[in-house]
Amino acid sequence: MNWLTQPIPSPDQRYLLAAVSRQAQLTKPAESLGELENIAIRLAAMQATDQPNIDKVWISIFASDHGVANSSVSAFPQAVTAEMVKNFINGGAAINVLARQNHAHLEVIDVGVASSLVELGVIHQKVALGTANISTQPAMTEQQLTQALQAGKESISRALAGQSQLFIGGEMGIANTSSATAIACSLLNLTAEQLTGAGTGLDKQGIRHKANIIQTALDLHKNASPMSLSVLQNLGGFEIAALTGAYIAAAQQQLPILVDGFICSVAALVAVRINPDIAQWLIFAHCSHEQGHQKILEALDAKPLLNLNMRLGEASGAALAIPLLRSACALHTQMATFDQAQVSQA
Amino acid sequence: MNWLTQPIPSPDQRYLLAAVSRQAQLTKPAESLGELENIAIRLAAMQATDQPNIDKVWISIFASDHGVANSSVSAFPQAVTAEMVKNFINGGAAINVLARQNHAHLEVIDVGVASSLVELGVIHQKVALGTANISTQPAMTEQQLTQALQAGKESISRALAGQSQLFIGGEMGIANTSSATAIACSLLNLTAEQLTGAGTGLDKQGIRHKANIIQTALDLHKNASPMSLSVLQNLGGFEIAALTGAYIAAAQQQLPILVDGFICSVAALVAVRINPDIAQWLIFAHCSHEQGHQKILEALDAKPLLNLNMRLGEASGAALAIPLLRSACALHTQMATFDQAQVSQA
Repeated sequence: MNWLTQPIPSPDQRYLLAAVSRQAQLTKPAESLGELENIAIRLAAMQATDQPNIDKVWISIFASDHGVANSSVSAFPQAVTAEMVKNFINGGAAINVLARQNHAHLEVIDVGVASSLVELGVIHQKVALGTANISTQPAMTEQQLTQALQAGKESISRALAGQSQLFIGGEMGIANTSSATAIACSLLNLTAEQLTGAGTGLDKQGIRHKANIIQTALDLHKNASPMSLSVLQNLGGFEIAALTGAYIAAAQQQLPILVDGFICSVAALVAVRINPDIAQWLIFAHCSHEQGHQKILEALDAKPLLNLNMRLGEASGAALAIPLLRSACALHTQMATFDQAQVSQA
Repeated sequence: MNWLTQPIPSPDQRYLLAAVSRQAQLTKPAESLGELENIAIRLAAMQATDQPNIDKVWISIFASDHGVANSSVSAFPQAVTAEMVKNFINGGAAINVLARQNHAHLEVIDVGVASSLVELGVIHQKVALGTANISTQPAMTEQQLTQALQAGKESISRALAGQSQLFIGGEMGIANTSSATAIACSLLNLTAEQLTGAGTGLDKQGIRHKANIIQTALDLHKNASPMSLSVLQNLGGFEIAALTGAYIAAAQQQLPILVDGFICSVAALVAVRINPDIAQWLIFAHCSHEQGHQKILEALDAKPLLNLNMRLGEASGAALAIPLLRSACALHTQMATFDQAQVSQA
């Protein structure tokens, strides 16, 4: 796992300064495009160009199951993970619609679904038939963690081979808000009660039970190493580890990353704890309705672009933000300057 | 002006209920698409269809000047209004980039720019060479108000002739945040100090001066009729009146409306005060950085989709929200149901 801590280049500061200068010359009041200006400037620096562009977007959905699903922490049965993978392959899920609309490449990787998936089109990198139940034992072995991180890294190799200009990771895994919440509690020193939310739709009693199970998991592993990789091994899902690996590899390869919702933000938090320079390559798409997401975003000093009360996962919030990024690039490259348009300045 | 209070049909409740029912069957946790579900349901009812769709978007930018610009209330000189109209025609402004990106039809209407604009492509409906200075006299005559409202109505006739499925109004007019702020203060019983913001970029001292000028205008007209049309006549800009007329006509014609930023929200407030049923046809695109916008949105009970610290006007915030509406429609119509995809329910 040595590759995880290999250095991460910074976005190009010359192009960043050039982009700041260009924004000041465009025919609009200074800073009147708000967050879109920041996005365009950051993308120019990340892509080391005067003409930032994210026409080619790569979306990798990592699917996996969770032993903790046996502890009744989700509103949906575990079978839904595999059923939704089939839905992805058949094109009927929300992310399929959004990927088509945005002309984004979509791939689905089985990193640990609890049943055999032989459907054509799924990328098979199954680590195991789901993780172990984190409330009774470590989620995975070190070998399994290595394998899941590697699966994420390989998605970045495919994204780069496809000349992608932006990477979006997504996830599917019944009970994975429990795993993500446990990881975040451990990294941020919070109790389960402080961070546990409704996931796919638990009621108040369900949330209380889920928080108890997560707290049991936290108590079980409280004397384990506080290192992020150990936390990931003890509490993580295979898809969360794959996302972590993907984010680290993308940043190492200077590929801009658009982070989806709660689960992905927790994976980004793990990635940043392992290799802090990753933060320079992250753009946060949205703040979800999941109640702990705001706290994770604050810990990452992230200002998400959207806040639409979504809580679906499968990269849907990030896919919705693609047009905002494309608009930021188009405005940056296509607007006339004050000089060109002969417009008076303030 | 009798047409302003003609009845406004309600969106179709049968299609609304059918859309609510369909959302519950799609392969996602209930309500997990957040605001996108509300948008899809509302558009289905507005369009009276099972297949809401806003492929065809019409954007009308109304440009006009303001006598109050002579009282140094803007960071930019008055000449910029005409210069930016030329920029719109030449395709170099932010709204041009966004209209192209979203395949939206863009038209520019001169309702009162303070210089002759013979450029090819501008729709000439000039009411006068700018309004009078609201801090010393009424902005316009009743005849001028009628004309400006009518100009807005005519843009809706063109939009409908073009089979448009969504109307977006925008504005350009140096000093028009002063006019809009004065109108909103009058309608909401607020002082100028409570609502005045930086507009295109005033500093603290500039904002204080602008608030003083607006308060002078409010004091001057405080004994005038509190009727919305009188307020619009005394304090309004021609472009604000045109937007008001456009919103009323669009709702009467059952054309969904996407409202842009601060100025447009004030025009929407006037429209709703004149004919409250208009509210059913309004979708609010964004909360801008202009400090009074939040209060206007609250008065309209509006939950905007975006909050990106923008403060540009010219319909730019609304244009950015077009892809969100299109995604809402696509998800509603293209996602598989639980039955179709054989996915287990909660």
